Amino acid sequence: MSSADDLTEIEAVIARFYAAFEARSLEDMGSVWDRSDRCYCVHPGWPILHGWKAVYSSWFTLFNNTQRLQFIVFNERVELHGDFAWVFCAENLLDEDQAGSLSSINYLGQVDGLWRIIGHVGLWSP
Amino acid sequence: MSSADDLTEIEAVIARFYAAFEARSLEDMGSVWDRSDRCYCVHPGWPILHGWKAVYSSWFTLFNNTQRLQFIVFNERVELHGDFAWVFCAENLLDEDQAGSLSSINYLGQVDGLWRIIGHVGLWSP
Repeated sequence: MSSADDLTEIEAVIARFYAAFEARSLEDMGSVWDRSDRCYCVHPGWPILHGWKAVYSSWFTLFNNTQRLQFIVFNERVELHGDFAWVFCAENLLDEDQAGSLSSINYLGQVDGLWRIIGHVGLWSP
Repeated sequence: MSSADDLTEIEAVIARFYAAFEARSLEDMGSVWDRSDRCYCVHPGWPILHGWKAVYSSWFTLFNNTQRLQFIVFNERVELHGDFAWVFCAENLLDEDQAGSLSSINYLGQVDGLWRIIGHVGLWSP
């Protein structure tokens, strides 16, 4: 696989991540993660969650307790190094009442030849 | 190099990182980083800084504008995968006036056969 193919797949995984977030679909969210003990997630202001059980549980909680969210993702920046990649995103977040600015760092790795999210760190913009 | 050697080196780099932070030594801090365009750093509440120039500049600012800091680092958790590793740390931070709880995620990679910090994300504990 060429680097160009890797970049295309990585960008597709990130797009599917945000689409799953917007759609509040646990199934779609689960399909982009490395569902293992090594995965981790930080939602803005939350503690670091370790392992797929904790990460999945957090998406369950978020999808059941938040309003419809819309993300406008921009300034995507991909760093690809062998079997690992990290992707910085700026996010404008719109919900029914308000708007906010966030950024994220997403860590991806190859799992059985497919790019999957190992870690997601969501940060409120200062 | 065995995994055990890698783990020992990774833990030594993390220890040197916190020692450099406590000593406010730019030279020691520079010695543990991958001083390249791909490195990045998030101080708690700061935007994501990209590249060694911006990262170095942030340490310069911090070391000149903060009081003596002391870190008690615990619950270190290392994930080693080939040429990359990430290390979670819980930090109790003591300065002259106050104490605080933080956590960090540190990304390391091999640079010319040596483990170096590629990314540091500092988070206030919720």
